[in-house]
Amino acid sequence: MKNSEKVTVIGAGSWGTALAMVLADNGLEVRLWGHKADQIQEINEHHTNHKYLKDVKLPESIIGYADMKESLDGIQTVILAVPTKAIRQVLGQIQEVQANPLTVVHVSKGIEPDSLLRISEIIEDEMNPDNLRSVVVLSGPSHAEEVSLRHPTTVTVSAKDMKYAEEVQDLFMNQNFRVYTNPDMLGVEIGGALKNIIALAAGITDGLGYGDNAKAALITRGLAEIARLGTKMGANPLTFSGLTGIGDLIVTCTSVHSRNWRAGNMLGKGHKLQEVLDNMGMVVEGVRTTKAGHQLAQKFEVKMPITNALYDVLFNNVEAKEAVDHLMSRGKTNEMEDLVNILGERS
Amino acid sequence: MKNSEKVTVIGAGSWGTALAMVLADNGLEVRLWGHKADQIQEINEHHTNHKYLKDVKLPESIIGYADMKESLDGIQTVILAVPTKAIRQVLGQIQEVQANPLTVVHVSKGIEPDSLLRISEIIEDEMNPDNLRSVVVLSGPSHAEEVSLRHPTTVTVSAKDMKYAEEVQDLFMNQNFRVYTNPDMLGVEIGGALKNIIALAAGITDGLGYGDNAKAALITRGLAEIARLGTKMGANPLTFSGLTGIGDLIVTCTSVHSRNWRAGNMLGKGHKLQEVLDNMGMVVEGVRTTKAGHQLAQKFEVKMPITNALYDVLFNNVEAKEAVDHLMSRGKTNEMEDLVNILGERS
Repeated sequence: MKNSEKVTVIGAGSWGTALAMVLADNGLEVRLWGHKADQIQEINEHHTNHKYLKDVKLPESIIGYADMKESLDGIQTVILAVPTKAIRQVLGQIQEVQANPLTVVHVSKGIEPDSLLRISEIIEDEMNPDNLRSVVVLSGPSHAEEVSLRHPTTVTVSAKDMKYAEEVQDLFMNQNFRVYTNPDMLGVEIGGALKNIIALAAGITDGLGYGDNAKAALITRGLAEIARLGTKMGANPLTFSGLTGIGDLIVTCTSVHSRNWRAGNMLGKGHKLQEVLDNMGMVVEGVRTTKAGHQLAQKFEVKMPITNALYDVLFNNVEAKEAVDHLMSRGKTNEMEDLVNILGERS
Repeated sequence: MKNSEKVTVIGAGSWGTALAMVLADNGLEVRLWGHKADQIQEINEHHTNHKYLKDVKLPESIIGYADMKESLDGIQTVILAVPTKAIRQVLGQIQEVQANPLTVVHVSKGIEPDSLLRISEIIEDEMNPDNLRSVVVLSGPSHAEEVSLRHPTTVTVSAKDMKYAEEVQDLFMNQNFRVYTNPDMLGVEIGGALKNIIALAAGITDGLGYGDNAKAALITRGLAEIARLGTKMGANPLTFSGLTGIGDLIVTCTSVHSRNWRAGNMLGKGHKLQEVLDNMGMVVEGVRTTKAGHQLAQKFEVKMPITNALYDVLFNNVEAKEAVDHLMSRGKTNEMEDLVNILGERS
């Protein structure tokens, strides 16, 4: 047993469950909270979570809880694995019943539209400071399905005070699940959130049948616009060359596991947004993030042509093909111009 | 007709033929030289090049030549599209018969082992300066098969004197084939060459069944080591975030079109190197490039763990699984260390 600490994972979707498995593999006592009683019963009686991780057997040391107060009893660390739009509500529930100040490890990827807050900022905004020991982000190229199969995976953790990030690194690190640290919390959160925009766009080019050359160009230019925005916001530009930048972008844009890619793919094939969302049955974070990214581009006065084109497809009834063709047909240009501007803006 | 210039493409493989099609689409008179008489006959009589571009109809304005002297008559620009190990020999043939100083546009990706010369340097080394007007490199994420289908594609051109790169940009640019310029010729050539090493390694992790998370981590760390070496050699680190860096790396590591990925995939499944090379039937540039990359890492004293692990698999009989597992199990570390070192070494 690596560690005798108790940890509660809030959110029994595919990612929360896969992370609970990593912690259980490391010998921790793991509580997995979910709001659906029948799902929790399945976890405790059959040690499966079939809807979210098909054909995966959970370690028996993962105990499901439907009661928030019970799940938090004696707990100092929670892993927050809920969709971004549910975070404020779930934090409210946590605060009603918690007994100790908590380290909250968030593992979701998004930006709140209108407030334009990152998830760590939402947590600080929503929670009473006395209830909050620290906020840590865990992010990187990590499909839950593969983590649950114990395939090699690498992620990054960050926090304002890195000693808490290192604590979380120790909880999760094992032979299959490698955890790196990066002190640039802003860059880690921005990269993780905004890559879902590019994944939607990459799905669209695939849905249009444009091929791998076009998708590689789109991912490259997508990373450039994420780095441009993030750097203007104060992130370290090198973070976008790391696991939570290019790494996560690649896995999200090129894997059929990715919900955002799949949603984009359907849009590229001519389906309407509402039809796509109804069909998915799971949350597509990139749709909300596109709205937030569009607002961030305006607020920070950064050129984000892919984000803006996708915004028009999602919210202004522009045809996907028209938007992508317009992106591809921009005038001939020096490749470095955008990148040089990033550095110019910083100096 | 966009341009009345005549251009000769040297090398009638898939990439040379696809580029000849782009030039023909732009209204140029295009000569396509190859050393196999029956292939040239097929091009001229049937307007196909079946072995290299299956089911593709070539424009009739592409004329095949088996005679080097005839193919160069009155020509000022040649596109050099031959495997890197054939380049010196072909340049010798060109010089024997050429009448005018030439602009040589090279579109191959490699580094010569032992001499450690880039392809532009091999051209300068091999050709009489009086025979050489300029050397231009064209590189980027561009599977020949997709270019031949006129799918959207973006590439980058570079030269010591950018006016020649801009001439080449004008020759190739059209609605489906977007050409950017980048003055960092060293970075463009290094990125294009070394990505084949990472593609081989990515094929191995896929062959081992390690999944998309592992591959994304490998690509991310692979780009970091390419950037580390290139920057030490004098390239602009931003080039590796562009089309000829991350863009080309993504397309080569994630597409079944990629020969280097396919070769790595077979290695990961336990086949021996010679067996893989015999099976491919086309040149796998990454094998030679791994030897050169291994030598470059020593010469420039740069840490390149992926390149060195692959070198051991290819040339020192280390098992692929053992090499990859060793790469994955390096101690926990701060993600930025390597990247910060890049900048530290430059300042």
